[in-house]
Amino acid sequence: MAVEELPLAGVVVLDFSQFLAGPVAALRLADLGARVIKIERPVTGEIGRTLAFAGRWADEDTFSFHSMNRNKEAVVADLKDPGELDRVKRLVARADVLIHNFRPGVMERLGLGYDAARALNQGLVYAAASGYGADGPWASRPGQDLLAQSVSGLAWASGDDRPVSVGLSIADHLMSCHLAQGVTALLVRKARTGRGGLVETSLLEGALDLQFELITTRLNDPAATSSCGPRMAPYGLYPTADGYLAIAITPVDRLGRLLGADDLAAYGDSDRWRTERAQIERLIAQRLATAGTGHWLELLTAAGVPCAPLQTLDELLASPEFTSIEMTQTVERPPAEPGGAPLELTMARSPIRIDGEILRSRLAAPRLGAQGRLRDGVDPLAAEPAV
Amino acid sequence: MAVEELPLAGVVVLDFSQFLAGPVAALRLADLGARVIKIERPVTGEIGRTLAFAGRWADEDTFSFHSMNRNKEAVVADLKDPGELDRVKRLVARADVLIHNFRPGVMERLGLGYDAARALNQGLVYAAASGYGADGPWASRPGQDLLAQSVSGLAWASGDDRPVSVGLSIADHLMSCHLAQGVTALLVRKARTGRGGLVETSLLEGALDLQFELITTRLNDPAATSSCGPRMAPYGLYPTADGYLAIAITPVDRLGRLLGADDLAAYGDSDRWRTERAQIERLIAQRLATAGTGHWLELLTAAGVPCAPLQTLDELLASPEFTSIEMTQTVERPPAEPGGAPLELTMARSPIRIDGEILRSRLAAPRLGAQGRLRDGVDPLAAEPAV
Repeated sequence: MAVEELPLAGVVVLDFSQFLAGPVAALRLADLGARVIKIERPVTGEIGRTLAFAGRWADEDTFSFHSMNRNKEAVVADLKDPGELDRVKRLVARADVLIHNFRPGVMERLGLGYDAARALNQGLVYAAASGYGADGPWASRPGQDLLAQSVSGLAWASGDDRPVSVGLSIADHLMSCHLAQGVTALLVRKARTGRGGLVETSLLEGALDLQFELITTRLNDPAATSSCGPRMAPYGLYPTADGYLAIAITPVDRLGRLLGADDLAAYGDSDRWRTERAQIERLIAQRLATAGTGHWLELLTAAGVPCAPLQTLDELLASPEFTSIEMTQTVERPPAEPGGAPLELTMARSPIRIDGEILRSRLAAPRLGAQGRLRDGVDPLAAEPAV
Repeated sequence: MAVEELPLAGVVVLDFSQFLAGPVAALRLADLGARVIKIERPVTGEIGRTLAFAGRWADEDTFSFHSMNRNKEAVVADLKDPGELDRVKRLVARADVLIHNFRPGVMERLGLGYDAARALNQGLVYAAASGYGADGPWASRPGQDLLAQSVSGLAWASGDDRPVSVGLSIADHLMSCHLAQGVTALLVRKARTGRGGLVETSLLEGALDLQFELITTRLNDPAATSSCGPRMAPYGLYPTADGYLAIAITPVDRLGRLLGADDLAAYGDSDRWRTERAQIERLIAQRLATAGTGHWLELLTAAGVPCAPLQTLDELLASPEFTSIEMTQTVERPPAEPGGAPLELTMARSPIRIDGEILRSRLAAPRLGAQGRLRDGVDPLAAEPAV
């Protein structure tokens, strides 16, 4: 797709954020065509550069950083230096979007809070992400994914006999979506009115949004159980002779007949699932243990039962299905020194397709200050976008 | 906020979708100010009306349906009836957005595929969600949350000794975000160019996007372990004498000193976490079992360790923190018969705040055909929006 055809072509985003949710929100905008410029502190840069995931690095930055900051440019500025702050403000005056996820109050103390930024630029869309909102009793608590999962009910909602936190940063990830969504919606309003605006969200609000069904049930029917786990019929991951099989909602008696398990088939009334679940699950497990996942998959799929094999990520990556959705892209970072070798990394692409096309970019995560340091007179907006 | 100030004010969305991801994508647009009109089949309507969650209903619809379809209008149309289809096409010609999550090929066979819809309306933003993409070996498989978790590596990524599916529809939920994001970005392009466009996403692509860090690691460093679980330092939910405590990354020896556990403090080298994790976790559990969550929370928080209590959803809903973020709203459905009582339901609101304001609407999920049936000559776009 030609660059100017990308949905957010021409939109300039200043990304002051760190860790995961803010950078990924900015990345979503970059993938849709926005020009994203990271503003980082001198020497160390954004903390995500060195906060290791699985201890894997490439070319001075963690794999996580590479993943979340591809398709961006980067300048260095010390926001506590009045002269550099002034140069930052001149960028803010010309940008369309500003994103940060500092704790509440930090940007205000720097002189870059929403009111100050709006005074510089009436058309600015200002996005602020936090752990638990800008005020309230938890406002100053650390906004961290696991902690948000724990306090929000999310960890309690997974697992049967004990709480289980999701093994991925789901609260951060959802917040990145909501932040990018709010920014993009305000860009629609900006196109209509010329005015910018403020979007705010938090890990806690995103974690609660994910639980909207449970919340509606709890708030309107105090007698309802709000514990988790399947409520209607077998629904879950069941071990087989050689792996696991996921079976979505299927009445007990029908499942029993298909599996050739008379004891299960005898459960005529699916409501018994509610009261006799442990016994029913034991019978399913006994039966499924007599053959491998492939056998059951074929048998149940032929009967129209919604089911799927449990795959590890490695199994998925090696599958023809993965190849067919073309989920990867290769980015290239130029060498640090002339004559050096560029760094190539393969990674996931945006989950969104536009006009039938996959959104890809060769632009790797920038080195710290790839576009220079503001105090040296660098003006990234006067330069052509990096590609 | 005045209705015309909402970011997506004036945007008309036709929502042909069902179950979760499509309706929630449309809901996100509605919360940001779009006018969303559900198009449903006669008699039964969208299947989400009767697919029970925890068996709880209000006024003929499930709580889930109420949660996902608040802030919408609804008309009835039989898409297989040529006359009614023609009326639907006349709506499509005047809408800004069309959303569906039928299996690939269904809308095309009805004469409402992207090409046909674009022929009716060059400015239409057309959004299609599927389980595994529009083509490829899995295209015809059932696009269901648990199955997508299972095949995508997501279920395998949670849990320590066995795979655990997230107890909430995380793949569906993420897809709803990506679909709404793509629609909104195309509305920005429409404002710039006048042209509509096509956005597509799938459960699988969203589930892979969530695993982007793992994918980068696997694709670029085959030697890296891609198994889940904490990699660097204690990080997780630990049982205490009366509950659970979430502790985010903290070096073993520091944690040991703070907990007053000499055996833990003796682990000077955090790298031993990688090889001696089971033993270290046993020691943490032994120590934490000697006091309640509140005790450890106070002690560790004072020392600056990122930690939080495990809360059930009920505990969260009863907390002052929940009250302070004002996460609920009350919607009202008019009575079915004159003189009847309206139905009031309290539910979660959008996780996004705009211009410092919470986005709320009194408009409840519509009854089936609340705005009428198209074959009776009803034109919802000729009427004022419901409020």
